Amino acid sequence: MKEFEHIEWVHQQVKPARQVDVGIGDDAAIIHTASGDRLAIAVDTILEGVHFDAKTPPKLIGRKSLAVNLSDIAAMAGQPMHAVVGIAFNRQAGPQFAREVQQGILDLADEFNVALIGGDTNVWDQPLAISVTVIACEPPSGFVLRSGAQAGDAILVTGSLGGSLQGKHLDFTPRVSEALILAESYPVHSLIDISDGLASDLGHILRQSDVGAEVQAASLPIAACLLESHTDKPKWEHALSDGEDFELLLTLPESAAEGLLNNPPFSTPLTRVGTILEDSAATLILPDGSRRKLNADGWEHSFD
Amino acid sequence: MKEFEHIEWVHQQVKPARQVDVGIGDDAAIIHTASGDRLAIAVDTILEGVHFDAKTPPKLIGRKSLAVNLSDIAAMAGQPMHAVVGIAFNRQAGPQFAREVQQGILDLADEFNVALIGGDTNVWDQPLAISVTVIACEPPSGFVLRSGAQAGDAILVTGSLGGSLQGKHLDFTPRVSEALILAESYPVHSLIDISDGLASDLGHILRQSDVGAEVQAASLPIAACLLESHTDKPKWEHALSDGEDFELLLTLPESAAEGLLNNPPFSTPLTRVGTILEDSAATLILPDGSRRKLNADGWEHSFD
Repeated sequence: MKEFEHIEWVHQQVKPARQVDVGIGDDAAIIHTASGDRLAIAVDTILEGVHFDAKTPPKLIGRKSLAVNLSDIAAMAGQPMHAVVGIAFNRQAGPQFAREVQQGILDLADEFNVALIGGDTNVWDQPLAISVTVIACEPPSGFVLRSGAQAGDAILVTGSLGGSLQGKHLDFTPRVSEALILAESYPVHSLIDISDGLASDLGHILRQSDVGAEVQAASLPIAACLLESHTDKPKWEHALSDGEDFELLLTLPESAAEGLLNNPPFSTPLTRVGTILEDSAATLILPDGSRRKLNADGWEHSFD
Repeated sequence: MKEFEHIEWVHQQVKPARQVDVGIGDDAAIIHTASGDRLAIAVDTILEGVHFDAKTPPKLIGRKSLAVNLSDIAAMAGQPMHAVVGIAFNRQAGPQFAREVQQGILDLADEFNVALIGGDTNVWDQPLAISVTVIACEPPSGFVLRSGAQAGDAILVTGSLGGSLQGKHLDFTPRVSEALILAESYPVHSLIDISDGLASDLGHILRQSDVGAEVQAASLPIAACLLESHTDKPKWEHALSDGEDFELLLTLPESAAEGLLNNPPFSTPLTRVGTILEDSAATLILPDGSRRKLNADGWEHSFD
């Protein structure tokens, strides 16, 4: 079963509905209330053996379950407000383990001023599963979607990429405040968080904006853990496709990007990695200057 | 690990927060938006081997995952609007199974005019887990909480009780429209859905309203499946404690209850089962007229 195919099928079945501005297909849905207030809603499930393993400290498991949702909210430039948590604990885990998982959620919620407003706690004989839903309000500058990229936009990323599964995926800082600052002070055209890898997530922006892009492999900011270790393939390949970076990928007009990069409003690194193009192709420029087709998995070796 | 103890512990950790009217401890949380619109948020997780089994038809699994949440929203007299779904499918399940689960969700969503706005679909080697979050808007008459019961109120239930695990728990009709009609036209003081059994769920109303109650065992409406089958204990014991009934339990002033029962506004049965009392004790009156202490598990055999 392919996740994207299944999501696409569900998307096709869903009818246009009341008070929905953005349904399935962005990092979060956007609804509006009777008075016109807009809210973003993100849901993410993390599973033992998939998103963490049995040895992961319980506080970090709880932390990640909320953090991945906050990253989705950051990807809309939303202000996270409330969270609800559905948990299925293994029967053998015991109350201390359960409390530590909850504490991991609560600590990160405190850090981001998010209120834990509800939950559903279950026990079963299977491994731990946690599903979190976060509700965010709209900043004055409005939510930012995947679909607004325009030809000529510079493509920027926050932080560094690749090697997240060595540890960062458990303790990354969701880029909530960076996204709010960027959306408020700069003409950000499109925004997504990098969860499946830059190549794949840039692909979402390109398809939903109906544009193409050129990415410079040599410009990709490489995570320190990769720089320090031996890797079988070039480090920029990891940066393109490792996934779980939970950094922001944004596009904005070139002139605004220059001002932003020259005078950054926060300490989190910002790096320009490419340019949005009118033609719908996605191209990777290798360090040696040769050009390859960029696709969701990274790039095609056979091209050129 | 005891679910209620764990919930209580989490509740104690949560700090008062922005735009939260009702946090953990009712059927759903209530938040408000910048303009003051109030929303109810319910989350419920259903698990293979706990809330359904491997033989349950996938459409009914999907249906139940949403229905239990709609029942929580009904328990607030909310108007359900939007749903997000986090699913962990077993890797062996295959795309047809996944689509049928989704179809079960979509069909019930259509029936209740609920928009499926987002989801997170995962695959793992473990049994199926589905976590649904539903967002509801407030009816003109306002949400109804567990905490408003007053001495002298009549206690009513919708439908019939007991034996739900014989089948009803998979295809029950969430009492959304009944709750909206009741809250709009009658002075409903408190409301809950019966998920753990009447005795347990009435207990939530009593504790949160700081009142007591008297329940007549002979008045309990017994589910047809129980009437037709042999049971080891009195059928009213099943009605008190089987759970998963997903019927409404409400309290309202005696005079209003009489008007409601004499001229019901819908075809779903309504039955008076007892009275709210000032004294905080909960008492069960047996068919022979003897009195027993009513507790969360049903009643105490040793009392008298």
